Amino acid sequence: MTTQIAMQKALSLAKEAAQMGEVPVGAVVLDENGHVLAVAHNEVEIGHDASAHAELLAMRRAAVKRGSPRLTGCTLVVTLEPCPMCAAAITHFRIGRLIYGAYDPKGGAVDHGPRLFQREACLHRPSDIISGVCERDAAQQLKEFFHQLRS
Amino acid sequence: MTTQIAMQKALSLAKEAAQMGEVPVGAVVLDENGHVLAVAHNEVEIGHDASAHAELLAMRRAAVKRGSPRLTGCTLVVTLEPCPMCAAAITHFRIGRLIYGAYDPKGGAVDHGPRLFQREACLHRPSDIISGVCERDAAQQLKEFFHQLRS
Repeated sequence: MTTQIAMQKALSLAKEAAQMGEVPVGAVVLDENGHVLAVAHNEVEIGHDASAHAELLAMRRAAVKRGSPRLTGCTLVVTLEPCPMCAAAITHFRIGRLIYGAYDPKGGAVDHGPRLFQREACLHRPSDIISGVCERDAAQQLKEFFHQLRS
Repeated sequence: MTTQIAMQKALSLAKEAAQMGEVPVGAVVLDENGHVLAVAHNEVEIGHDASAHAELLAMRRAAVKRGSPRLTGCTLVVTLEPCPMCAAAITHFRIGRLIYGAYDPKGGAVDHGPRLFQREACLHRPSDIISGVCERDAAQQLKEFFHQLRS
């Protein structure tokens, strides 16, 4: 699966999340050969789990599938810039490449806020980070969700 | 359960973790009345889950027990200063009080590194943070574990 197709898959997972009342964020983990290891969308409300962000769930599922807590060489594709929790988890799981959609100036921790991968003490950072992929679609989903929530 | 007894419980969970080859960190979540909601130690290797840090597991278990992703009014007692992943999760779970043992100048994110709760954009920080509780015991467990790992 190409990165673009993986992002389309992640966007469709985000849409499913919104239909369930979850913040629309979707994620896909690909292995070294571009095969899908795991997918997820936010499950915070349904799972009574504030840590159930799409990318954290996808990484956890991928690692269980691999039988290892390390996802070396894998690519994480996610519709929104990871928060500090998920960015630090990307380090713990040793994700190889990170591709994300919408920027999150308030909650993001990759290109905003604490910029965890840019810190000297960071033990592992993805060798490649591509941001803003399908940004408009990902941002639009979030905008619509929060607009409906307020109305 | 008092905070001191909860820390003793967390230290004993950390000891169990070490015996299983896991990094010795233990955590306890107490509700508003000081009753234990959940306990955990690191399960990274056994669970093939790099995010399975003691405090993240304990908060997830406590939230499921409560039937809500919010742990408002609860106290998290953990033997080591939380990393950025766990500190951000403390925000997401809306933990009321944080008590931790050993300082972690390299990996911690409360009193070291990104100091997440001190950032202006932080949406929720514990109203009380007490650090260095039983620090010597907690640090000693970690020191012994990594010493044995290297020898």
